[in-house]
Amino acid sequence: MKNGNNTRLFINEVATRDGFQMESHFIPTDDKVALIDTLSGLGYAKIEVTSFTSPKAIPALRDGEEVMGRIARRPGVVYTALVPNVRGAERALDVKIDEFNIVMSTSETHNLSNLRMTREQSFSQLAGVIELAQRATVPVNVSLSCVFGCPMEGEVPLETVLGWIDRFAERGVAGITLCDTTGMAYPTQVDVLCKAVMERYPELDFTAHFHNTRAMGLVNSVAAVEAGVRRFDMSLGGIGGCPYAPGATGNVATEDVVHMLQCMGYDTGMDLDGLIHAAGEVGRLVQHELSSQLPRAGHRLTRHQPPADFAEIAERAAARSEGKEVRA
Amino acid sequence: MKNGNNTRLFINEVATRDGFQMESHFIPTDDKVALIDTLSGLGYAKIEVTSFTSPKAIPALRDGEEVMGRIARRPGVVYTALVPNVRGAERALDVKIDEFNIVMSTSETHNLSNLRMTREQSFSQLAGVIELAQRATVPVNVSLSCVFGCPMEGEVPLETVLGWIDRFAERGVAGITLCDTTGMAYPTQVDVLCKAVMERYPELDFTAHFHNTRAMGLVNSVAAVEAGVRRFDMSLGGIGGCPYAPGATGNVATEDVVHMLQCMGYDTGMDLDGLIHAAGEVGRLVQHELSSQLPRAGHRLTRHQPPADFAEIAERAAARSEGKEVRA
Repeated sequence: MKNGNNTRLFINEVATRDGFQMESHFIPTDDKVALIDTLSGLGYAKIEVTSFTSPKAIPALRDGEEVMGRIARRPGVVYTALVPNVRGAERALDVKIDEFNIVMSTSETHNLSNLRMTREQSFSQLAGVIELAQRATVPVNVSLSCVFGCPMEGEVPLETVLGWIDRFAERGVAGITLCDTTGMAYPTQVDVLCKAVMERYPELDFTAHFHNTRAMGLVNSVAAVEAGVRRFDMSLGGIGGCPYAPGATGNVATEDVVHMLQCMGYDTGMDLDGLIHAAGEVGRLVQHELSSQLPRAGHRLTRHQPPADFAEIAERAAARSEGKEVRA
Repeated sequence: MKNGNNTRLFINEVATRDGFQMESHFIPTDDKVALIDTLSGLGYAKIEVTSFTSPKAIPALRDGEEVMGRIARRPGVVYTALVPNVRGAERALDVKIDEFNIVMSTSETHNLSNLRMTREQSFSQLAGVIELAQRATVPVNVSLSCVFGCPMEGEVPLETVLGWIDRFAERGVAGITLCDTTGMAYPTQVDVLCKAVMERYPELDFTAHFHNTRAMGLVNSVAAVEAGVRRFDMSLGGIGGCPYAPGATGNVATEDVVHMLQCMGYDTGMDLDGLIHAAGEVGRLVQHELSSQLPRAGHRLTRHQPPADFAEIAERAAARSEGKEVRA
């Protein structure tokens, strides 16, 4: 594997939307605002603040407008939100969102299960959202689910994935996020898919979104970056799960991936110590153990103390080398 | 990342030594024998059965002779054990071990802390073990700790690592295991170190031994295999930890790594379903949660059922497409 040679990468935080929406208790609005204000200073390219879905469907994010209205928007950071339909788009425009993130699945069974619509119905609804965004000159990113496989259908053919990207590209979206929705991606598959889409659509910004469900989140991130992907979704503490694998971990953890990429010589633009601290704050808010490793282990050069009796051990060893015996 | 193209890899299981020695309660001898007999049929190149250290120092493995005497030794599988000194070597020879695995650290502070000797003292003790092995024509493998960094000293210079390998190579050992003792390795470092040692010592068998302490165990495995390493230590369920990072995970989990390598097209020779089953057995024996992902998530093409009301969802969606409205 090659050194990153300071290649600039762009990191998106999704804990505040993709993570918080899965939590069983409501995170207070004040805490969300304070967390996002902290994150804004850590070097992120983009923060997915909330979701403008129905407050009944996702009560955890019912305070989307208030959060967007109260955070301090730092120049250079893109504040995005999930926008499912025209009603959500109008709400997002009211609070002057920087980008719409729209979602559908490349698997018919997953789309029906998750969004209760056929893929054609989703596309037609999202086409209305894109139209509205374009009138308001707000860029649109499409998060395409299950591009590395569907937990119900199995493999999703590359041609199917390319077909949906074609249709969104024709509508003039700015970017596509390749979502490994339930952690089915593996490195050589990531390499093939990422290269195929980047070659076919040089004008689109591609983002990789991996889950650590089968422990391959970090290696898939390296496969994507080596294939040329420069934008990555991550979630502090690895929060945000998937409903199809009980007990399994979900999103890759921002602090773990950033630590690795920095070790490898990539320029992530991120403040790693700040991330570890913010992950602790996320842990406090969600009130459960995090799946990330770095808050427990520290960065790789974290120094640990030798045993308390180290001086004595060393002295005895030295005495043995000199042929003397030290008695306890 | 490149497809493995059926490149043959050789997998070593260390749970029964490196894992069990860390457990707080004694695993019954019958269970150890039954587990190893199961593992012998799963495709491993090598199984680290036990340790011939003092029963007082590691009571968890005080039954080493009995376990070695009772397992069914399958032709083609190398049954190895940790041998710390001449006394241990004699015990290991008594039970006709296939290989000695000897251990020292490339970090002076770590060696003193862990083995209570200077590195020179360790080397001199191990030289006696090697002599005994050579007289008995038993091959010796050296597990070199901290080659990717020391939790107390920080970086361990490449020249230091090469210097110790030089000295063991001169003594005619068969192989060297590059141990990432506390999970400090990162992919580009793995690439550099593995290529350096394989170029310098074409006659030695190198094994990579990674920990998942900072979530990089799988990506480091890929870095090693892409650098040309073909032998890997792994631990079922990821058991076996490191005392320097409380709460952190330890060894990479056999089932997680084998699953990834098989997805990538490598020939591991392993029975993956058998491994997942054996990991469940390990979990039952150690009586605590495992850090591995695959026993929870299943292999990547594990099929999940759609929601219970899927037929109804699909029917309503179809009706909407036909312009009809279905009422609940």
